[in-house]
Amino acid sequence: MTEQDRNAIESIVAQMEKAWNTGDGAGFARHFTEDADFVNIYGFHGKGRQPIADAHERILSTVYKGSVNRYVLKQARMLAPDVALAHICATLEVPIGPPSGRLEALPSAVFVREGGAWKIAAFHNTLIEEPPFAHNHGQPR
Amino acid sequence: MTEQDRNAIESIVAQMEKAWNTGDGAGFARHFTEDADFVNIYGFHGKGRQPIADAHERILSTVYKGSVNRYVLKQARMLAPDVALAHICATLEVPIGPPSGRLEALPSAVFVREGGAWKIAAFHNTLIEEPPFAHNHGQPR
Repeated sequence: MTEQDRNAIESIVAQMEKAWNTGDGAGFARHFTEDADFVNIYGFHGKGRQPIADAHERILSTVYKGSVNRYVLKQARMLAPDVALAHICATLEVPIGPPSGRLEALPSAVFVREGGAWKIAAFHNTLIEEPPFAHNHGQPR
Repeated sequence: MTEQDRNAIESIVAQMEKAWNTGDGAGFARHFTEDADFVNIYGFHGKGRQPIADAHERILSTVYKGSVNRYVLKQARMLAPDVALAHICATLEVPIGPPSGRLEALPSAVFVREGGAWKIAAFHNTLIEEPPFAHNHGQPR
């Protein structure tokens, strides 16, 4: 991955963080493709930039109103000349609930280059949680 | 997406289902790329075909021993000439616990064509759960 591509992806991730933190659902969805896929932490599968924008407008003015998200790019790599895969460490502080408190999640995003600009074609999010069974060294969390 | 590509991806998904149901962790990981990314339902991020195989060998002989997985390809589409995105409806019946019972999940998989064969470069899984807040019409789920 070129430094330029990595910087572009980091910039988009930072813009999404800022959009979340200012309650701007349309801004959060701005860099998604028209037909993007979105899977949220409850396994809900949304489809399309406009519905993703609408859903985020709703949650950022209700259950996640006033919440503060912190996105840190964990990893980004190329899958093809115009496709990149990113994993993000997400930490969300929710002031009122439920849900409230600190939620940690690990979203991944698949970026495609459209007309020279990186767009998110797929976003998939999962909360980081302890499994309901004892786990020993080497076992997947 | 050509019918041939869709059939190839459906076949891999069916082989993963079969591998899970026969407790074959190496078989489950067979179609992953050498450096694949894997995010499980607890937000654990695994890396590489061999670690993914080892982790599945472990869980299929312990917490998920005797479990029955059903994978149905929900959607598959091309992101680039050699990259495809698939979403899968997964239903897992776990005989003993915890966890036990019926778990529904929505994994996504990013496939890349390597030497003419489709391989999974990234797999990301999320349990389908009710959000901990009331949701009205139009809200995600």
